[in-house]
Amino acid sequence: MFKFKILKKSKKSSARVGEIETAHGKFKTPAFLPCGTVGAVKTLSPEEIKELGAEIVLANTYHLYLRPGSKTIKKLGGLHKFMKWDGPILTDSGGFQVFSLSSLVQIRENGVEFRSHLDGSSHFFAPEKVIQIQKDLGSDIIMPLDICTTYPCSRKEAEKSVELTLKWAAISKKLNEKRPRSKMVKLFGIVQGSVYDDLRIKCAKELLKMDFDGYAIGGLAVGEPKSDLWRIVKLLDEILPKDKPRHLLGVGEPFDLLKASQYGIDMFDCVLPTRLARHGVVWTKKTQKLDLTKSNFKDDPNPIDNCGCYTCKNQFSRAYLHHLIKEREILGHRLLTIHNLFFVVNLLKKIREKI
Amino acid sequence: MFKFKILKKSKKSSARVGEIETAHGKFKTPAFLPCGTVGAVKTLSPEEIKELGAEIVLANTYHLYLRPGSKTIKKLGGLHKFMKWDGPILTDSGGFQVFSLSSLVQIRENGVEFRSHLDGSSHFFAPEKVIQIQKDLGSDIIMPLDICTTYPCSRKEAEKSVELTLKWAAISKKLNEKRPRSKMVKLFGIVQGSVYDDLRIKCAKELLKMDFDGYAIGGLAVGEPKSDLWRIVKLLDEILPKDKPRHLLGVGEPFDLLKASQYGIDMFDCVLPTRLARHGVVWTKKTQKLDLTKSNFKDDPNPIDNCGCYTCKNQFSRAYLHHLIKEREILGHRLLTIHNLFFVVNLLKKIREKI
Repeated sequence: MFKFKILKKSKKSSARVGEIETAHGKFKTPAFLPCGTVGAVKTLSPEEIKELGAEIVLANTYHLYLRPGSKTIKKLGGLHKFMKWDGPILTDSGGFQVFSLSSLVQIRENGVEFRSHLDGSSHFFAPEKVIQIQKDLGSDIIMPLDICTTYPCSRKEAEKSVELTLKWAAISKKLNEKRPRSKMVKLFGIVQGSVYDDLRIKCAKELLKMDFDGYAIGGLAVGEPKSDLWRIVKLLDEILPKDKPRHLLGVGEPFDLLKASQYGIDMFDCVLPTRLARHGVVWTKKTQKLDLTKSNFKDDPNPIDNCGCYTCKNQFSRAYLHHLIKEREILGHRLLTIHNLFFVVNLLKKIREKI
Repeated sequence: MFKFKILKKSKKSSARVGEIETAHGKFKTPAFLPCGTVGAVKTLSPEEIKELGAEIVLANTYHLYLRPGSKTIKKLGGLHKFMKWDGPILTDSGGFQVFSLSSLVQIRENGVEFRSHLDGSSHFFAPEKVIQIQKDLGSDIIMPLDICTTYPCSRKEAEKSVELTLKWAAISKKLNEKRPRSKMVKLFGIVQGSVYDDLRIKCAKELLKMDFDGYAIGGLAVGEPKSDLWRIVKLLDEILPKDKPRHLLGVGEPFDLLKASQYGIDMFDCVLPTRLARHGVVWTKKTQKLDLTKSNFKDDPNPIDNCGCYTCKNQFSRAYLHHLIKEREILGHRLLTIHNLFFVVNLLKKIREKI
């Protein structure tokens, strides 16, 4: 129960419109996946996520493994039931979080040792375990354990990252195939290799041999110059198969979504829309970004942007939103989150219409 | 445009079912008013407030005066438009907040001097100013500046409180009557007098002579024994006119709502439902209170209480709510707030049905 159908292709670029079918329904691509890190998209109810147009959400393997624990979620009927989201769910590999959030990270041939950012407790992620966690969660699309490099990254580190990412990808692939076909969730391979073209090419080609259900590009948007990011994305556009979905991990700036979709990227996730909202910043069509914490919005009777989101549709004024954010009233955070997520989800809808 | 219609009276007690009509619609009594302190009921959208059955909300004069300022709200079209709540709004006198939140409070014959709890800036509330603030906000029901005593309270302090509360009530009454009849909002008198029966009687009788649109009982639920609270409420039940609405300020424990309504109380407000929610505590029919932060809810697949609220209706499990609260995810705070407010609003609905 997983199909990637390409419905339309651009004549000018690699952009395409598609549809991915999972055991929990379909979603159109290119798609933006709101981050439901610990099993909730910050401040929002499941209905609100749907209402703003999102068809699939992302949840974090690392966070849910630590709390409440994947076994607990399994016992309660899986992540869909737990968070009352009946649409598709993608879980990431946990690799990015291990390297960015936890401490005392030790890379071994058979996995990664780390200490929880919550309580300092010791944990070990082996590729087998990461697949098991995601199986317990009941995700529709899963990722193998990888080593997500930071920037800058030495060639030696990048080589090691590619070597282990490939080794673990092979273990994960075999393990996922052993599961009964009916229940088989789809596994994406993750391309690493930092900003080294030859390592990226090598990693992608080796993954292709293993024939994954889709491919994710990891280790970008971690601080490298934009020119590096686009060179790698362009490079991989030429190597990754046209008939499999592609996910660009962690990229979410509106302009980047537009550009990446021209390189055939089908899926995006990023905490930016929710994080900016928490800090009082919203995207608008004309001005790009508005910082509603600024005092010039104190008397502004206008809605953020007359878009179709709940916040703009109901004419909540910038003055009111400014006030709520200043007062740290949760409703403010919520109204801005709705606007920002609607903005990117809707941007991808427009991109699909233009392809 | 303000009518208090008594629809039904109990034969066993002073309880009554009524309906109050304001310029922004009707609400049934006895009623619970969710607190929209700074112009938002914590975490909730206007639709959610309506959906849980609330017909009127309370907002705080003190908070809105300090931020964003009543003049700003007036310029933006008033509080109803500002917070997108088209139902009735009651604002309190600010007295309680001045004495409980601000610092360096100096009581003078013509008002109260205090320093803001936000930035330490100096302010002066005169009775005239407090009426003007509420007029600027555009509230439907307003309160005169009063002196809310704490507990314990010396007889001398209580006497002073009654003396000034009465003096300021008279000034406020005159001022409100000067306003064009069509725009005249309704003004309640506030009965003070701490736990001293004779002072409560005196205060109530003097207010009655001024003929207010309704009467509020202040200075209770501030730490005094419950026996004192009920003695005063019972006492005032015999003095306050039967044909005017009565508001018991700051009382919101479910059992207290039940008992107070038998003494003819028509309106309640309290931060308890939202505050308990913030701390992970919910009310249920059987167990009274559940502390969902406790680890025994980690695996509990049941909803809070199978009531008709959004949270229970959608079967969000105690395990999920426990998880969200532990993670400080705002959705948890929101789902518990909805439940607790539904609980009290619905309790009053049941009380109305039983009278």
